[in-house]
Amino acid sequence: MKFLSEKPDISFTSPLFAGILANTLLSTVPGISGAGPGPEKTLLTPNLDAELITDGVITSTTGNPNTPTGCPTPATITRAMMVLTGLKPLFINAGLRHTPSVPCLDAYGEVAGDPRDGDALPAAARLFTQGERIGSFLSARSDLLVLGECVPGGTTTALCLLRALGYEASVSSSFASNPVPMKEEVCKRALERTKAGRSTAPLDLVRSLGDPMMPVAAGIAKTYTGTLVLAGGTQMLAVSALIKALGQPLPSMVTTSYVRDDPTANVQALAQRIGVHVTYVDPGFGDLGHAGLARYCIGEVKEGMGAGGAMYLASLMGYTPAMIRDAILTTVNACR
Amino acid sequence: MKFLSEKPDISFTSPLFAGILANTLLSTVPGISGAGPGPEKTLLTPNLDAELITDGVITSTTGNPNTPTGCPTPATITRAMMVLTGLKPLFINAGLRHTPSVPCLDAYGEVAGDPRDGDALPAAARLFTQGERIGSFLSARSDLLVLGECVPGGTTTALCLLRALGYEASVSSSFASNPVPMKEEVCKRALERTKAGRSTAPLDLVRSLGDPMMPVAAGIAKTYTGTLVLAGGTQMLAVSALIKALGQPLPSMVTTSYVRDDPTANVQALAQRIGVHVTYVDPGFGDLGHAGLARYCIGEVKEGMGAGGAMYLASLMGYTPAMIRDAILTTVNACR
Repeated sequence: MKFLSEKPDISFTSPLFAGILANTLLSTVPGISGAGPGPEKTLLTPNLDAELITDGVITSTTGNPNTPTGCPTPATITRAMMVLTGLKPLFINAGLRHTPSVPCLDAYGEVAGDPRDGDALPAAARLFTQGERIGSFLSARSDLLVLGECVPGGTTTALCLLRALGYEASVSSSFASNPVPMKEEVCKRALERTKAGRSTAPLDLVRSLGDPMMPVAAGIAKTYTGTLVLAGGTQMLAVSALIKALGQPLPSMVTTSYVRDDPTANVQALAQRIGVHVTYVDPGFGDLGHAGLARYCIGEVKEGMGAGGAMYLASLMGYTPAMIRDAILTTVNACR
Repeated sequence: MKFLSEKPDISFTSPLFAGILANTLLSTVPGISGAGPGPEKTLLTPNLDAELITDGVITSTTGNPNTPTGCPTPATITRAMMVLTGLKPLFINAGLRHTPSVPCLDAYGEVAGDPRDGDALPAAARLFTQGERIGSFLSARSDLLVLGECVPGGTTTALCLLRALGYEASVSSSFASNPVPMKEEVCKRALERTKAGRSTAPLDLVRSLGDPMMPVAAGIAKTYTGTLVLAGGTQMLAVSALIKALGQPLPSMVTTSYVRDDPTANVQALAQRIGVHVTYVDPGFGDLGHAGLARYCIGEVKEGMGAGGAMYLASLMGYTPAMIRDAILTTVNACR
């Protein structure tokens, strides 16, 4: 298997890796999200991921951002790539419950509510404007932006938005056993409520059932003048669908082969329907000799915090698959 | 009078203008700060300044960041320079009472308390670390960083820190009539309390009587690898004194000639004692035909939000004094 499904033809001199952090209260619904050691604690996962990527350790709390089964957070992979390449990541706070311990470019957003109960994101339009401002700022500071995300519960908001935009989507999960019926139930009720509200304007749909990452990412896409690559799985497909619905040009996407190979999601078909070009990274975690990483191959975690994008960026910068795999194994062992 | 007191020998390809925003409760002590239309409202001035520089208008509130006498906020000058040069400014939130309306790189600090009552800034050491992280990130994104500040009440914290570090300082003010006795009283009591605490370690002094801008600026100075220029008057002298006390190399400074010419401050003598090199900008506001700007010359406002640094940067980028003065007059009239 090739490391990258294809070598993209991108030239750049000043690459930037950024991750958008956000919360939705959906992650606290028991069983929805595997991004954290328990439902309430999923809200803290973006903060811990950012701290881990910045410092290599988590010191602000005794918690950890691994899955309940002990799978390493994908942030470990992102950390490994930052160390390998020497890149300094940028974190964008789109709306978090807890104050981050590391500096973030803050859009001063809000945590999304449960879309079954009422409008999930009243600040949707304002956060799109904030994204536009951030994209404009970053245009002068980089010519390639690989943009990841960390939104526990975000595959469910992605499912909601994709369906609301008219796509017959099924979505991926960080659980090995994707809690499809529960997500379907959330989505069904959120869509019923949204349809009652009548507006089908894309940002109104985000307001009704989205999460803070979505409008910030779409706003960045609107104004960023360099090459933008959205790094993530079904959540970035939802962002792509939003960008398309807004009538903006579509950036390309990168994600791991583990997301593509998820039998409960239909990533490739969906990407084709949206018209977004996706590059897949296959880091071959099955034969690295690490039990937790190997579980990525059987469908656990699979992606997150732009891990696929970080490996892709390292590859574009000239690091070989062997160097990338070595760096990941070293970092995962050190973070244990 | 020359526009720049000297032409610095700096080469750069990717300049960045950034402003650190922070609050100290000292600005709410009646008569201490002229940065805002009234004592409580001074807390909002950094937010309004950032909004004005970003958008050219303030829409988030009916307030305005001008002085009680209607002098234009120096942010108008900074705004004019951003429009002229096309630079996109970065705002760094070191600790604000109110949530900004525009994105900021947030250090997740705290508002400084009144140093007469107790330790003003318990987070001083943590904010220094945040500054180090920010400097490290910005090093990869720029090779010249002009760093301004907006801290209402900050000349009084500057006075406190300079005295605590052993300098016989007197400080400038945005009031035409500098409220020296009131500042002296605050400073005397803050110093008495600080001496009782015994530690003279520089960051402990900041903890005792400083403001959030100081440790963030000093942390940035520690890790920034390009050319750093501190843009401001006595507040940046206090930062320089802190940087020196921490044993770090001193960056240079830029400020307006109106700060240098303030008879109640001793900027040049103090700069010499600290050993910091200062470039002065004389924009000649006296003959621009604008009453509010002309009052800068008789000692009101004088500087703020890196206005001197923004004019200096425009000059380094090749814009003539005439272009710079025209741009300021146009913007001030539009912001009226």
